[in-house]
Amino acid sequence: MLAKVYVTLKNGVLDPQGKAIQHAAGSIGYQGIADVRQGKYFEVKLADGIDTAQAQAEIEKFAHDVLSNPVIEDYRVEIG
Amino acid sequence: MLAKVYVTLKNGVLDPQGKAIQHAAGSIGYQGIADVRQGKYFEVKLADGIDTAQAQAEIEKFAHDVLSNPVIEDYRVEIG
Repeated sequence: MLAKVYVTLKNGVLDPQGKAIQHAAGSIGYQGIADVRQGKYFEVKLADGIDTAQAQAEIEKFAHDVLSNPVIEDYRVEIG
Repeated sequence: MLAKVYVTLKNGVLDPQGKAIQHAAGSIGYQGIADVRQGKYFEVKLADGIDTAQAQAEIEKFAHDVLSNPVIEDYRVEIG
C-alpha cells in the first residue's frame, strides 16, 4: 500500500526558497510565474498485511509527528 | 491559476534522505513503514490573464528546465 504525504508551509509563513525560485524565474524570462511556494512530498510504502484503518492511523501519526513541523507546516495524506 | 508540480527521483536512483527517514521511523516504533522516498512539491501561481494553453506550456518548460533535474528526476504537473 502506498501513501503520499504532501507537506506545505502554512499560509503566512515566509518561504525564502520559493521567493528565490520566483525571482530567478523572472530574471531568466519566465513572465508567467507570479509566485512559487516550495513544499515536500513523500511516498511512503506501508508494510504488507497491515489493514487499511491501521495504515491510515499510522501514516497520519507519522506525517504529523515526523514528516512535518505542525507549528509552521500543514500536511495532507493520500492513501491509494 | 495555480499549478502543482511534483518532482520525484527516478526509479533506481538512490534516495539516502528517504532511507534515513525510513530507518528513523523503524527505530522509534513505526512498524508499518516499509519504505520512504522523498520528493519535492511546488505550488506555482501563474500570472493573471495568461491563457490556459500558454500557462501549460510555460509551466511544463519551467518544471523541466528549472524545478527538476531530468537526468535523475521525474516531474508531474497539475493545473487546476
